[in-house]
Amino acid sequence: MSNSTLSPSATAPDTVHSAPYAELRKLVKEAATLESIGSLLSWDQETYMPKSAGDFRAEQASLISAMAHQKATDPRVGELLEACESDANLMGAAHSAEAANIREIRRDYELARKLPTDLVSELARATSLAQDAWKTARAKSDFATFRPHLEHVLSLTRRKAECYGVPKFNGRTGELYDALLDEYEPGMSAAEITEIFTPLGKRLSGLVADLVNGSQKVSLEPVKAKLPEAQQQTFGLEVLRAMGFDLNAGRLDVTTHPFCSGMAPGDTRLTTRYTSESFLEPLYGTMHEGGHGLYEQGLPKGTRFGEPLGRSVSLGIHESQSRMWENLVGRSRAFWEWALPVAKKHFGPAVGGLTLDSVYAAANYVERSFIRVEADEATYNLHIMLRFELERGLISGALPVADLPGEWNRRFKASFGLDVPDDAHGCLQDVHWSFGLIGYFPTYTLGNLYAAQFWEAINRDIPALDAQIRSGDFSSLLGWLRNHIHQHGRRYSASELCKRATGAALSPEPLMRNLEGKLRPLYGA
Amino acid sequence: MSNSTLSPSATAPDTVHSAPYAELRKLVKEAATLESIGSLLSWDQETYMPKSAGDFRAEQASLISAMAHQKATDPRVGELLEACESDANLMGAAHSAEAANIREIRRDYELARKLPTDLVSELARATSLAQDAWKTARAKSDFATFRPHLEHVLSLTRRKAECYGVPKFNGRTGELYDALLDEYEPGMSAAEITEIFTPLGKRLSGLVADLVNGSQKVSLEPVKAKLPEAQQQTFGLEVLRAMGFDLNAGRLDVTTHPFCSGMAPGDTRLTTRYTSESFLEPLYGTMHEGGHGLYEQGLPKGTRFGEPLGRSVSLGIHESQSRMWENLVGRSRAFWEWALPVAKKHFGPAVGGLTLDSVYAAANYVERSFIRVEADEATYNLHIMLRFELERGLISGALPVADLPGEWNRRFKASFGLDVPDDAHGCLQDVHWSFGLIGYFPTYTLGNLYAAQFWEAINRDIPALDAQIRSGDFSSLLGWLRNHIHQHGRRYSASELCKRATGAALSPEPLMRNLEGKLRPLYGA
Repeated sequence: MSNSTLSPSATAPDTVHSAPYAELRKLVKEAATLESIGSLLSWDQETYMPKSAGDFRAEQASLISAMAHQKATDPRVGELLEACESDANLMGAAHSAEAANIREIRRDYELARKLPTDLVSELARATSLAQDAWKTARAKSDFATFRPHLEHVLSLTRRKAECYGVPKFNGRTGELYDALLDEYEPGMSAAEITEIFTPLGKRLSGLVADLVNGSQKVSLEPVKAKLPEAQQQTFGLEVLRAMGFDLNAGRLDVTTHPFCSGMAPGDTRLTTRYTSESFLEPLYGTMHEGGHGLYEQGLPKGTRFGEPLGRSVSLGIHESQSRMWENLVGRSRAFWEWALPVAKKHFGPAVGGLTLDSVYAAANYVERSFIRVEADEATYNLHIMLRFELERGLISGALPVADLPGEWNRRFKASFGLDVPDDAHGCLQDVHWSFGLIGYFPTYTLGNLYAAQFWEAINRDIPALDAQIRSGDFSSLLGWLRNHIHQHGRRYSASELCKRATGAALSPEPLMRNLEGKLRPLYGA
Repeated sequence: MSNSTLSPSATAPDTVHSAPYAELRKLVKEAATLESIGSLLSWDQETYMPKSAGDFRAEQASLISAMAHQKATDPRVGELLEACESDANLMGAAHSAEAANIREIRRDYELARKLPTDLVSELARATSLAQDAWKTARAKSDFATFRPHLEHVLSLTRRKAECYGVPKFNGRTGELYDALLDEYEPGMSAAEITEIFTPLGKRLSGLVADLVNGSQKVSLEPVKAKLPEAQQQTFGLEVLRAMGFDLNAGRLDVTTHPFCSGMAPGDTRLTTRYTSESFLEPLYGTMHEGGHGLYEQGLPKGTRFGEPLGRSVSLGIHESQSRMWENLVGRSRAFWEWALPVAKKHFGPAVGGLTLDSVYAAANYVERSFIRVEADEATYNLHIMLRFELERGLISGALPVADLPGEWNRRFKASFGLDVPDDAHGCLQDVHWSFGLIGYFPTYTLGNLYAAQFWEAINRDIPALDAQIRSGDFSSLLGWLRNHIHQHGRRYSASELCKRATGAALSPEPLMRNLEGKLRPLYGA
C-alpha cells in the first residue's frame, strides 16, 4: 500500500536508540515467531491435515504454545521493560511508537506471567482435541460426545480467568468473565456490554418484528442456484482483489467454518465454504474474512512483526473491518451495481435473470433463523446476545454444561420464537467454545457497532465513496482504513481509536440508523 | 496394518523398566516433535504458502531448527545415555529394542553435538531462502541468480562436514564428502560407492546402447493424452489405496517436485505433479512417493515416534521402497493387467485404444534424456553417477560453483551423448542442492540396488505374487515389506537388514538381471 495517504498521526519509525529497547523488540519478535508457527499448525488442522494426525497435532500445538509462553515470560523481558520504562527518552510522549510499544509489551508480559506454562500447554492440547471432537459431534448433532471436551476446556478456561484475576473498573470489581473478555477487548466489562446490549436487543427485536410484518416481501429465490465451486472461488478471488487484498501475500481455502489467519508477515490466509444453496453466502463469507485479512495486511508487520504496534488493537475493531466489507459495502446497492456484471461474467446463464433490484433485496433478506453465521444484519446481534448470556453463565457456574442444550433452546425460543430442532442447529453450531474462546462472542456485536460508526465517518470524509464503489473502486475506502485504523496497531486503545477516527465515543445509533434506513424501505415497514 | 505377519524378529515392546531410559525416550520424542513442526513448515512452503511469506518462513524454519537442535543436544541426554549404557539389563542383547535404541540415540547425540546451534539455524534459514531462489532460477533457467545461494549453502554444508569430521573406514581415512554421506547412508563411503558405481555404470551404458539399437522400437505415443488433472488425481488415489496407503493418515497434493513427508504419527503427505503429456509419469511419481509413504506408515511411530526404532534406517533403504513400487511393481506386465482397466474407468474414451502391450511397452520406454526424474530405469542411474561425481567435487573444492554448469554439460555429453540446451535441463533441474542435501544422490542408486535384491527375495518367498498383482492384490507384498523392512526402524543397519531380508550382502546383480531380463526382449536387443 502506498504511504501517501498516511495522516500525521501515523506510526513513525522508532527514533530513540536504546539497547534494552532493541533487545526487547527482538525477544517479543521471537515469541511471536513461535506463535506464528502455532497458527500454521492450527490453519493446517482446519484445512489439509489428515484425520489420523489429530492426536499428535495436539502434542505439537501444546509444545509450541508452551515454548512461546516461556519466551514471552522470560524474566529478561521484565528486566528490559524496567530499563525502558525508566528511560525518559523512550517514554516521553504517551503515544510515541516507543512509549506505546513499551506500555503494551508490559501489559502482555504481566498477563502472560499470570499463567503457568503447564496451563497454557494443557489448554493448547485440550482445545486441539476438542476441535476435532466438536466437528464429529456437530456432524452427528451429538452433544453427549462433545460434553466432556467442553467441560475440560471450560474448567481450564475458568482456571485461566482465575489466574488473570477479576479486574476492577473505576474502582468497581467486575466478574470472572471480565478477565477473559479483557484478552479480546481490553478495557471492556460484561456490565458495560450488558448496558449496551439490553436496549440494543429491544430495538433490534422491534425492528425485526416490523420487517417480517412489513408490506413488501423480500425473496431469496433469485439467488438460489447450484453454482460450481470453482466458479464461486474465482468470483470470490476477483472481489478480494478489487477490495485490495494481496493474494501474493495470502490465500483463500475452503473449511467447515470460515476464518482468517494473519499468521505471519506476508502470510494472511482466508477460508470460506461453498455449502449454501445461495451464492451470496459464500461471497459474504469471503468478503468478511477479506475484511479481516485487509486489516492484517495493513498492520506494519514488515518492520514490527510481533510488537504491539504490529498487532490488531482488539477483536471488536477487527470485527468492524470484516463487518464493514461484508455488510456496509457488500450489501449496498452501489456494490451490486459493480458486482452483478462481475457475477454474471463468472456464472453465466445460471444467474442470467438476476436483476439489481432482486440481488440487492436478497442480500438484505431478514429472517429469524437458527444459524448465526448465516444470519442477516438485523437478527445477527440477537444471536450474539444469546451466546453472551450463556457463556457468562458457563463461567460463573450458574449454568452447568449438562444444561447448556436445554437452556440454549429455551432462550432461543424466547428470542426468536423458534423451536431448535437439534443441537447442530443449536448449541453445537459454533466452533468458538471448542477453541476455549469464551468472552469472544460479544466482540462481534461491538464490531458491528464500530463498523457502522466508522462507515458514517468514512462517508463524511469521502463524499464520492458511493460513486467509487459503483465502479468497483475501493481504493479510497481502503486508504481511509489504512490511515485511521490499520497502521496504528495497538498504539491507541480501541475506544481512543474510535474517537480519533470518528470524533465520538462508541454509540449504537449509527448501527440503528443504518439498519432502519436500509431495511424499512425495502420491507415497507 | 495387521500384525499377524510379523516375524519373530519383530520389534518387541520394551520389557526393561528403567527411569533413565523412559526419560531418554521422552526427550528424543520432544526433539522429534519440534522436527515434525519443521517438516510442516517445509511441506507448507512447497504446497500452499503464499509467495510473499518466503522470507519470514526462513526465520520460522531457522528458529525451529535451532530449538530442535538444542533439545537434541541437551546435556541431560548425555547423562541419561551414560546411565542407560551402564545398565546391563538394558544393554544385554545387541538387537533388543532397548540396546538398539540406546546405540542409535548415542549416534544421533554425538553427531548433533558436533554441530553448533548457530550453524544449524543458519543452514535452515539459508536453505529455506535458497529453495525459493532455486524455483525462480529454474523457471527462468538463470543459474546466475541461484549461484550466490548455492555458494552460501555449500559453504555452510562444508562447515557442517568439517564439524562432523572425516570418518575412518576400517582404519582407512575417508574424505570430507563421507561425513555428509554418513547422515543419509550410515556406514557408506564415497570410495565404496565408486567401487559399485564404476562397473555398474559401464554395464548400464552398454545395455542402453544395445537397447536403442535393438530390432524392436518402443513408442510413448500411445500414452500421450491431455487428461484432466482431477481424473489423474482420482486414478492416482485409487492406485495408492490399492497399494495399502492409508489416506486417513496421509494426503496427495501437487508440487513442482514430487516428495513424501512422513512428518508425524498419522500424517504422511505425498505430492506429485501433472505437467507431463503422458499420464504414466504422474502415476509413477505418485507410486514412487507412495512407496516412501508406505514405509513411513509402516514404521512404529504410534509407540516410538522420534526414537531411532521409529525412524527409517537409511535413505538407500527408503529409496528401495519407492523404487520397488514405481518400477518393479508399476512397470510390470502383471500390474498393467490390473491397472489398465482401472485407468480406462477413470479416463474413459481418451485412453480407449490403449492395449496391454502398448502400455507395458511405453512404461518401459528407454531413452537418453535430460531430466533425471523423468528418466527410465536403465538410464536413471547414469544421471545419479553424474551428480555424485559433481557434488563430490563441489565439497572437495575441486569444482568451483561458477564452473558447475560447464562441467555438468561436459560430463553429460560424455555420458549421454547429448548437448544440454539450458541449465533448467542441466544443473538447475534438481531441488536437492538448494536444500543442502549433498551426499543424498548416491542413495537413489543404492535404493535401486536394494529394491531389485529385495524383489528377488520377495518373489522367492511369495510364489503367487505375480498372480496377486494381476488381480490388484498387493497385501502379501506389503506384508513382506512391513515384516522384513518397515517395522524394524533402525534396529539393524542397512547392510544387516539387507542380509536378514535377502540372505545376502548388497550386490548389483539382481538389478542387472532384472533390467536385462525385462528390457532386452522388449527391444529385441
